[in-house]
Amino acid sequence: MAIELDRFLAERARHLKASEIRELLKLTERPGMISLAGGLPNPAAFPVEIVKECIDKVFEKDIDKALQYGTTEGLTPLRATLAERMCEKYGFECDQNNVLVTSGAQQALFLTGLVFLDPGDVYMSIPPVYLGAIQAFHTVEGRFEAIPRIGMEVDLDGARKKLDRMKGEGRYPKFIYTVPTFQNPSGETMPLSERKELLDIAKEYDLIIIEDDPYGEIRFDGDHVPCIKALDDEDRVIFMSTFSKILAPGFRLGWVVAQRDTLRKYILAKQSVDLCTNVFSQFVANEYIAGGYLDRHITSIQVLYKKKRDVMVKALEDFMPEGITWNSPEGGMFFWLRLPECVNTRELFDKAIEKNVAYVVGDAFYPDNDNFCSMRLNYSYATDENIREGIKRLAEAIAEEM
Amino acid sequence: MAIELDRFLAERARHLKASEIRELLKLTERPGMISLAGGLPNPAAFPVEIVKECIDKVFEKDIDKALQYGTTEGLTPLRATLAERMCEKYGFECDQNNVLVTSGAQQALFLTGLVFLDPGDVYMSIPPVYLGAIQAFHTVEGRFEAIPRIGMEVDLDGARKKLDRMKGEGRYPKFIYTVPTFQNPSGETMPLSERKELLDIAKEYDLIIIEDDPYGEIRFDGDHVPCIKALDDEDRVIFMSTFSKILAPGFRLGWVVAQRDTLRKYILAKQSVDLCTNVFSQFVANEYIAGGYLDRHITSIQVLYKKKRDVMVKALEDFMPEGITWNSPEGGMFFWLRLPECVNTRELFDKAIEKNVAYVVGDAFYPDNDNFCSMRLNYSYATDENIREGIKRLAEAIAEEM
Repeated sequence: MAIELDRFLAERARHLKASEIRELLKLTERPGMISLAGGLPNPAAFPVEIVKECIDKVFEKDIDKALQYGTTEGLTPLRATLAERMCEKYGFECDQNNVLVTSGAQQALFLTGLVFLDPGDVYMSIPPVYLGAIQAFHTVEGRFEAIPRIGMEVDLDGARKKLDRMKGEGRYPKFIYTVPTFQNPSGETMPLSERKELLDIAKEYDLIIIEDDPYGEIRFDGDHVPCIKALDDEDRVIFMSTFSKILAPGFRLGWVVAQRDTLRKYILAKQSVDLCTNVFSQFVANEYIAGGYLDRHITSIQVLYKKKRDVMVKALEDFMPEGITWNSPEGGMFFWLRLPECVNTRELFDKAIEKNVAYVVGDAFYPDNDNFCSMRLNYSYATDENIREGIKRLAEAIAEEM
Repeated sequence: MAIELDRFLAERARHLKASEIRELLKLTERPGMISLAGGLPNPAAFPVEIVKECIDKVFEKDIDKALQYGTTEGLTPLRATLAERMCEKYGFECDQNNVLVTSGAQQALFLTGLVFLDPGDVYMSIPPVYLGAIQAFHTVEGRFEAIPRIGMEVDLDGARKKLDRMKGEGRYPKFIYTVPTFQNPSGETMPLSERKELLDIAKEYDLIIIEDDPYGEIRFDGDHVPCIKALDDEDRVIFMSTFSKILAPGFRLGWVVAQRDTLRKYILAKQSVDLCTNVFSQFVANEYIAGGYLDRHITSIQVLYKKKRDVMVKALEDFMPEGITWNSPEGGMFFWLRLPECVNTRELFDKAIEKNVAYVVGDAFYPDNDNFCSMRLNYSYATDENIREGIKRLAEAIAEEM
């Protein structure tokens, strides 16, 4: 007879709970459902033919190496290719020795927690916060503290006051985590002035900044805003990004850029976590960038998502009742809807599901308090028709609730 | 100017040190060096043409899914395929709901530590112990205790006495970790009677058994010995294996089998570690098994390794001085050499390197005490000529040292 093994669990494993959101997302698989809830790239953005060409080249040139174990740091040519791209396009200095290839950006987040957070250690972020980061830092028993906001502005004075108070209590945060460009979930981009101020705060209070930039290359409108890492003259910023939005998430490839000593700890941690990142996929990704395919393909991703963004803006304008506001993102994959206080998006959810449309409730992204009058909408995945029909159904549900 | 970030490190990250072995292995990259040190499969064992066929099928049938995010649990058909194979070939009952696909077996080990070991928690194993497991459990600050041996036999009475003593001190180990078949590094296979006794001990002292079986399918001699999991009537054994030796390590694919409640914790932990395993590779691996390719290919791996094992046995017999003993493995990838006490294999190492041959010093696999008169030799990777020449050089170095 099977015995149960619960009593053997580590403390951190006891705290691990299924993300409520992922449970909700299961509802979105019902037939007829239009899901604006997920965070998936559109398969039409996958460069299928290019991937095939890249794979053919790997078979021609490197297949024995691509099928073998690799170094924990990652494929050297890929690290060099990435370093070069970051110098040219992202505007900060680095070389291959500053780059670690990870099993998706999620692993970069997890390694960040593993390297910096002892149980009870504090990290800060500006809510709403990306769910995957909350999960990664939670697993190593890190504790979240919010950087306050006033409306949609970051309250930098409030942040200083809070940091003074925390230091008075002997609680020194280790780092500030932020997705400054086309944030998930809010779709927002932090203006340059705020980036500078955040970096100033990190200097004043001696904090690391973890800059997560999965969407930066998916800009289809407006002007490029420099990475925080590009403003960083102290090597205080650890930068991470991913191939999931510019190539394909199925390859699970991300990367971290950090100063060498710090990166060394990431590498050692990764060695015990999974030895090395999928080598075959690294060869494919290296062909993809170094072979010039990415630069040729990325415009088509931008064009596709711009069109979908426009479809969603138009639908929101056409159908949403008065009192609902939203950002119009210049890139990335998400809209953030703010509703009047009278509408609780968690209660609204059931009604929306009845009407066969799904979204993610805003409070999922607030680890320390509730925010029930917001929601995240994804525009990258659904067909244009479904975006329009989904927004129409959602608007009806909201109107009924109001 | 760059500031240094060391002061931000978590306690566990301070303890992370570069594996000395991996540093030594760098020496093996010198030109002219014959390395019997690594643990790499032979590229001739990689089913390159088959992989190409499997990839073509994935492009024909599933490419949009293969490039997209997948579920944390792993690709459902692959989980089902693996469950079926384990019922048929490994001899224990399970279904897809007991299977989690991991980013290599290393991740299965790390997740085991994450799920079960609080800092200071004890795990046990029979030294010599696989390095990757030591690293994984060390990263979450687990503490090792040896199951004692008398010579090459497991000292099961000694194990009971030690467990009594530990319990008296209030230190309850969480699990016993073991690679019972063609162990890395010793090449040994635990006899059935010992497997039964180990399981009895786990029952008596209420411990989990972590059974790691990367080499089980690479048997080319002798009779199959059942997995410990196949003897387990209490669901007390957590089983893990890998595609690295039967397909290719570059795909970084492994799996864990556990009872559903326990597996759920692994899945939740994995969600925060890397979201999901490389989806493209999972589709390829599924074609590989479900399409019948593995069964057709595996014999050729066995034939290749048997030949190499024979080459190494012959060379050892031809060249080694009196007083050196070794096992003759019936599968897997390793020989374990025992030398007289007068030879310190760590001191011998420099002399061997001078002669352009490399091995792994035995004491690397003994976390809690030193064992300087043993070494691990790999026979899967080098060419037949290099195996013979390498053993010749090594024998010379040993003879000089004696």
